Amino acid sequence: MTQDFSQLDRNGRLRHLITLDGLDPGLIRELLDRAQGYLCLPGQLPPRGGDLRGWTIANLFAEPSTRTRASFELAALRLGADSLNLDVMLSSRVKGESILDTIYTLQAMQVDVFVIRDAEPGILELVARHVDDHVCVISGGEAHISHPTQGLLDALTIQQSKGGFRDLVVAIVGDIRHSRVARSAYRALTALGVAELRIIAPEEMMPDTGEFTGAIRCRSIDAGIEGADVVMMLRIQRERIAGSATTDLRHYHEQYGLTAARLARADASAVVMHPGPMNRGVEISSEVADGPQSVIRRQVSNGVAIRMAVLAHVAEARGRRMP
Amino acid sequence: MTQDFSQLDRNGRLRHLITLDGLDPGLIRELLDRAQGYLCLPGQLPPRGGDLRGWTIANLFAEPSTRTRASFELAALRLGADSLNLDVMLSSRVKGESILDTIYTLQAMQVDVFVIRDAEPGILELVARHVDDHVCVISGGEAHISHPTQGLLDALTIQQSKGGFRDLVVAIVGDIRHSRVARSAYRALTALGVAELRIIAPEEMMPDTGEFTGAIRCRSIDAGIEGADVVMMLRIQRERIAGSATTDLRHYHEQYGLTAARLARADASAVVMHPGPMNRGVEISSEVADGPQSVIRRQVSNGVAIRMAVLAHVAEARGRRMP
Amino acid sequence: MTQDFSQLDRNGRLRHLITLDGLDPGLIRELLDRAQGYLCLPGQLPPRGGDLRGWTIANLFAEPSTRTRASFELAALRLGADSLNLDVMLSSRVKGESILDTIYTLQAMQVDVFVIRDAEPGILELVARHVDDHVCVISGGEAHISHPTQGLLDALTIQQSKGGFRDLVVAIVGDIRHSRVARSAYRALTALGVAELRIIAPEEMMPDTGEFTGAIRCRSIDAGIEGADVVMMLRIQRERIAGSATTDLRHYHEQYGLTAARLARADASAVVMHPGPMNRGVEISSEVADGPQSVIRRQVSNGVAIRMAVLAHVAEARGRRMP
Repeated sequence: MTQDFSQLDRNGRLRHLITLDGLDPGLIRELLDRAQGYLCLPGQLPPRGGDLRGWTIANLFAEPSTRTRASFELAALRLGADSLNLDVMLSSRVKGESILDTIYTLQAMQVDVFVIRDAEPGILELVARHVDDHVCVISGGEAHISHPTQGLLDALTIQQSKGGFRDLVVAIVGDIRHSRVARSAYRALTALGVAELRIIAPEEMMPDTGEFTGAIRCRSIDAGIEGADVVMMLRIQRERIAGSATTDLRHYHEQYGLTAARLARADASAVVMHPGPMNRGVEISSEVADGPQSVIRRQVSNGVAIRMAVLAHVAEARGRRMP
Repeated sequence: MTQDFSQLDRNGRLRHLITLDGLDPGLIRELLDRAQGYLCLPGQLPPRGGDLRGWTIANLFAEPSTRTRASFELAALRLGADSLNLDVMLSSRVKGESILDTIYTLQAMQVDVFVIRDAEPGILELVARHVDDHVCVISGGEAHISHPTQGLLDALTIQQSKGGFRDLVVAIVGDIRHSRVARSAYRALTALGVAELRIIAPEEMMPDTGEFTGAIRCRSIDAGIEGADVVMMLRIQRERIAGSATTDLRHYHEQYGLTAARLARADASAVVMHPGPMNRGVEISSEVADGPQSVIRRQVSNGVAIRMAVLAHVAEARGRRMP
Repeated sequence: MTQDFSQLDRNGRLRHLITLDGLDPGLIRELLDRAQGYLCLPGQLPPRGGDLRGWTIANLFAEPSTRTRASFELAALRLGADSLNLDVMLSSRVKGESILDTIYTLQAMQVDVFVIRDAEPGILELVARHVDDHVCVISGGEAHISHPTQGLLDALTIQQSKGGFRDLVVAIVGDIRHSRVARSAYRALTALGVAELRIIAPEEMMPDTGEFTGAIRCRSIDAGIEGADVVMMLRIQRERIAGSATTDLRHYHEQYGLTAARLARADASAVVMHPGPMNRGVEISSEVADGPQSVIRRQVSNGVAIRMAVLAHVAEARGRRMP
């Protein structure tokens, strides 16, 4: 974010959620705790609330069928909000109407929260800088740079599995360079004080050295996951592999795919994570994905809970309630 | 369905609804009765219920604007459920993500009921075999093989028009071979004990002899509808006619279209049915479609009622209720 | 509308809203007053109501992301209705299913209100002539001929800004010939008795002389907005400019774009309107669009309120209420 912009209000509460960068660990823990309260046992009906009764959420995603959009939509419904789905990518609307005019129009229809996924860096902050005081902007994924609710759900999943963060070794494996998931996980886990964070990728998928400071960089997955408590696999973009030095999917799997044999190098009680959707047989083998150490489905459940927590938090911070 | 799979739970209640094959006539009658309770007079506001309050229904249809999807969506809304619409055809997602991963992901978001339409046989059962115990899978149409809620709404419409099934002669006319509507009607009506079921089609649209056992097969519509109490016309797929021996639509209409003159051969109080959308002037003339013997629009109303009945039944059978 | 069709019921209340043509000024004022009651201060949660509880609204728009559809959807939600969105243009469905069959089908599912946008003139009336007595048809924009809720929201915005209509000079600028916005504004403002209405357009965008009777026609925007109290700019269709005598967008802006310098010719307290989405730098400069005289965003807020008022009016007139 640029210098003079803050996603926090005067009370240090979230007004927007665009990045985890610079977020107070106490605030992150509060969101995780709140999310924990929205979870339930399998088979139980999910907890609901009226925190957003009377509020209107607009989901602005270019693609209608993403899991993140469904997750936000369910979170909003379960908190009593009205939900409006618009299949638009703001940054591609420049010809027809300016980005801000689209936002101003929806704001004039009394949209209270914008959940936005966009491929262009900076759009989220641009929108947040221009909306009215009572309006909140929440990222549903921004280019390669930020996916804060994913970072939070990853942290929640680790907390549930490991009881805390202090002594953990976390290994993130895959296309770190182009991954908003990796960046937000890095922000969250650094803030929460994990002992060691390792990023594992081939040369061309490694981020520039100015980023991920403090993380240990490994070319070899075998070395990198040695003794790790958490192994977080990233989704590989098939397009990206095709034109690169890593010539094909099989080769990638051989070099960087997580198999049961490899996982044995990690700590015996290590958990395996993946943001989905998975390319089975590429970055992760089915044996691992469906194995006892996988917490991949729990991540999805935590995703709805985290989005409920974020929405309830910003609604509470705005102090606007149905009479 | 394969040998070791049952869509019923231990109490003989529906857990899923994938096929009408093998369904107990008593259970079918119970669903028809329940649906009858969801009907109302034209102009009245439709009955509602809270049976699915707190439940989440995911509608997985490849095409967003089908009438069946709208029918399920309204049924869910009127029973108080939250509804999530996803424009996906599961069987075409294989490249991006495995079918089951899509399902597991939505299940982890606490989707309770999947309503699925798919072009590939077997997808419904595959999903039903893998979901958690409390999750229900309901067919919105499966390839050419099954469309159980359509079969039930057809049965309900006949029961309303004719008072019962025992002495009825029912004629189904059209592309029986490729029709899930015909197959599910056959299942329902056979279970409910119609006196005589006739299937009428040109050679290339007649099913293999292993199917529709007990039904009388006719090449001629004039002979086939003679004295029938119910004439059920099927929608013709224009694509299918183009390349076949039956060379064009006009020819098909001449050979198999239901006109007023032809309908006169049926019983004087016969009713005419069609699952929609109709090709007027092809399989059915407007004179008949809009005539006094047509119950086509009543089928649509019954469709919502049947879907409400099925949803309320599976919710009741699961025993999960909002506190 | 054709001779023997009326959108009013026997009590002179709106049953449908297809055009503002011939509407009683008292009825228009009543709708504006009702809409006023649905407005709130920025930051407040929008007023809601239960007037449409139990009602089902179907939004039939070819394009899912129009602002008018979002406006109707929010209006329906805030009045407690169930909303069904179908991405269809009725007039383009002729091949697959007749227009009326689509309508009859949805009506049989107990849709109570159809909100329809269509590119073909006459579709709205066709539908309204065929639906059941208790069903309402509301235009969301019909070809180039009518956009009644837009006309009402424009009138409401003017009333709020100017306190009334009697002494006003209103100038409409742009492609009047092809504009349903201009036609509906003309209807509303004529009925409400504005003192003077001016239409300003290049030759090829001027309507035939049989239309807009009583309006003053100007080729020059500079002359046309002289002393005006309201300047209503229309969106230019870029396609239309390309092939015409007015050769390009820059030329159009020079000839007909509203700049601050031009606006200075209007009354000092004149307000500027635009139906959106705006082509900034073409029909309107950003300086004006975002300037102190612009009421463009207020138009959007009024749009939701007007649609709520229209829906509540027709629901009240039908007298159907949840028990």
